[in-house]
Amino acid sequence: MLKTITIIGSGNVATHLGKALLKKGFSINQVFSQNKDNSFELASALNAMPCDDPKFITDESDLYIICIKDDFIAEIAQQLVFKKKIVVHTSGSVSMDVLVHFDNYGIFYPLQTFSKKTEVTISEVPFCIEANNTDAQNQLLALAKVLSNNVYEINSEQRKKIHLAAVFACNFSNYLYSISEDILNENNMDFDILKPLILETAKKIQHNSPKDVQTGPAKRNDQEVIKNHINLLANAKDYQDIYSLITDNIIKNNNGKL
Amino acid sequence: MLKTITIIGSGNVATHLGKALLKKGFSINQVFSQNKDNSFELASALNAMPCDDPKFITDESDLYIICIKDDFIAEIAQQLVFKKKIVVHTSGSVSMDVLVHFDNYGIFYPLQTFSKKTEVTISEVPFCIEANNTDAQNQLLALAKVLSNNVYEINSEQRKKIHLAAVFACNFSNYLYSISEDILNENNMDFDILKPLILETAKKIQHNSPKDVQTGPAKRNDQEVIKNHINLLANAKDYQDIYSLITDNIIKNNNGKL
Repeated sequence: MLKTITIIGSGNVATHLGKALLKKGFSINQVFSQNKDNSFELASALNAMPCDDPKFITDESDLYIICIKDDFIAEIAQQLVFKKKIVVHTSGSVSMDVLVHFDNYGIFYPLQTFSKKTEVTISEVPFCIEANNTDAQNQLLALAKVLSNNVYEINSEQRKKIHLAAVFACNFSNYLYSISEDILNENNMDFDILKPLILETAKKIQHNSPKDVQTGPAKRNDQEVIKNHINLLANAKDYQDIYSLITDNIIKNNNGKL
Repeated sequence: MLKTITIIGSGNVATHLGKALLKKGFSINQVFSQNKDNSFELASALNAMPCDDPKFITDESDLYIICIKDDFIAEIAQQLVFKKKIVVHTSGSVSMDVLVHFDNYGIFYPLQTFSKKTEVTISEVPFCIEANNTDAQNQLLALAKVLSNNVYEINSEQRKKIHLAAVFACNFSNYLYSISEDILNENNMDFDILKPLILETAKKIQHNSPKDVQTGPAKRNDQEVIKNHINLLANAKDYQDIYSLITDNIIKNNNGKL
């Protein structure tokens, strides 16, 4: 059983994960961040030692969790020299192969958006687990299950698809929210007026397939409303293009297909 | 002060609105639906008389709320003959002019998605109010404020823009959810894994501008991830087109513009 952990990173994922692990009785040995202040701040919150130079990351922990920006994972992993421990990263899109020089390695990917200010109910966060061998896999699954009720064994191919799906469902939805905010602000209305509807739309699919609850002019193929909407966007070509493309898609793919 | 109300319609809006009004002490005189069973069912729930023929809609109420499908509002309004009462409809996209033959008329538009099964906290539903004269406007505002803490005076031009904004933020977001479900199902994963992230994305903008919390490969202009995602969608041209267009938009409009 994994007992002692080193956290590499001091951002949102590192903070939420570190605090959740501490709460569940794990010991955090070290917190590494290239930014000294950040490493001190999080280390202090986690009863751990700070570290701002990868050379001084010790080999005393059972598990090393790399939760830093995607672009730097491979680089920091290369600087870790101990072999027998388990080393994981928490990214949705970085290959597990960047850890191939370790004996035991894997993925410990919490599929949630974290921000420092907002509390997250970690027990509801889906964790996607993968490892290079059965023993590491079992240990990581056991650890994830201590934190969360939503633990999935997900291979690298699937993880790529999850990330792609999340870009549509979350990054792109958020962009559509920002378009709607623009439209309202341009017409002297506050974005607040739409917020309850946005929340209800996301709640609705918690217990329904999105296909079954699709509504709107495109779903009804209501050409008059669609034409009016496209005209209203005459001065916003980019938004007009998005409106037309998604509308055409909904009309065409009424039953969904891939 | 408005005291007695006739509900024209028996769908989701009619049901939720009728029940909320009854709860607040208003009398519902009649419930009209062309479908006899529906008019009986809702009338019975609202202590009202059912009616399935527009000829028999009586002139005894202070207010007539037309909450039926957009396409039929003008038609039913033409069949109502009494003049001095207030007549409103609840649609986001139908012009107020379809009621122009009444002395007092307006819009009573609850900006929320209703389904019969799901409870709605009516006090949080934004109501968009408009009327053809000040007295009717004041009476409708007062009524809406009995039901909800989110009451807005919205003119017809603004209402069109709200509806357009809602299509982006809600109808189109829901379509993106369905794309993500397709991607997951195609790869033998359950849509459940994405639901917490979808909900958190909608919650995040309750207290932040979407522009300020935009994340993802397009926001970072991470061309490697973007290229991989587009390749993953090689067999789903429609979804690939949406991915490319929204990604290009995010990259281009990083600061938002209309």
